[in-house]
Amino acid sequence: MFEQIADSQDALKQVFRRHASGVAVITLNDEQGNPVGFTATSVTSLGATPPLVSFNVARGSSTWPALSAAKFVAMHTLGENGLALAQKMSQDHTKRFLDSDWKFDEKYQLPIFTDATAVLFLKIRQIIEVEANAVVICDALGGLLGEELPALLYNRRGYLIPGKRLTD
Amino acid sequence: MFEQIADSQDALKQVFRRHASGVAVITLNDEQGNPVGFTATSVTSLGATPPLVSFNVARGSSTWPALSAAKFVAMHTLGENGLALAQKMSQDHTKRFLDSDWKFDEKYQLPIFTDATAVLFLKIRQIIEVEANAVVICDALGGLLGEELPALLYNRRGYLIPGKRLTD
Repeated sequence: MFEQIADSQDALKQVFRRHASGVAVITLNDEQGNPVGFTATSVTSLGATPPLVSFNVARGSSTWPALSAAKFVAMHTLGENGLALAQKMSQDHTKRFLDSDWKFDEKYQLPIFTDATAVLFLKIRQIIEVEANAVVICDALGGLLGEELPALLYNRRGYLIPGKRLTD
Repeated sequence: MFEQIADSQDALKQVFRRHASGVAVITLNDEQGNPVGFTATSVTSLGATPPLVSFNVARGSSTWPALSAAKFVAMHTLGENGLALAQKMSQDHTKRFLDSDWKFDEKYQLPIFTDATAVLFLKIRQIIEVEANAVVICDALGGLLGEELPALLYNRRGYLIPGKRLTD
């Protein structure tokens, strides 16, 4: 038996409360060469041939001015050791790169958090503005593989790690 | 320490193996009024004001001809009881609506799987074709709230349920 939700905003909120997502961190450089970035729960693959990725961003976010002018970004997947990073990258944007938990990579000069479980280097192909948000479509270029740890997840307004596997 | 992955397709595959996602089922009617649908791990919110949703689809998929002509779709979130449904909706498309686990809803006449943890009714606003894929952007209209169960997740090529919560 279902309970009806007539209001569209309430419906979005309540339905997505039941949806889970993986947690990623997107980083890039602003036009002055300073590192910027944010926690994203919207990163998803958009096909493998060619290898494409999409993610969503609010155009009111602190990272938007840099992102809308950028060519390259780094997408980090986080593991169970990434909780503090996920929280830091979704809070006060002036404090996101003050610690010594990142460095510029040699090839793209993008800021890389060294505790990520993996990093995918992306070239922005297309940005589609939709209302106050944007869908960013990128080509994958190459990556870095870190330690394999249980993936960090977001669900019901909090962070968690995977539990029982239902299939092999 | 990171291991370099130079090949872009290999990088996409290996990095996304470490990323997790929630599992949803998208349903709609084809132009003859027959129910069609598929399992999607790319569903994400695209802002709340107005309430928007995006998901990705391969344009070679069995559902694409119907989707590219449709106005409305239903997005279902799945819980731990949704494994068989997630598997069915990603396998042989001729067998996806043979069981009595769904019915047409009264308002939109969309096929609804009755064991979903929630359903969001969506109106397609824009479809952006990218290579062999598409990004579908929808307005949320309203929803149905079912039983709250642990969310079904996909990670490392298999289905699982949430484990330990790291935050409240």
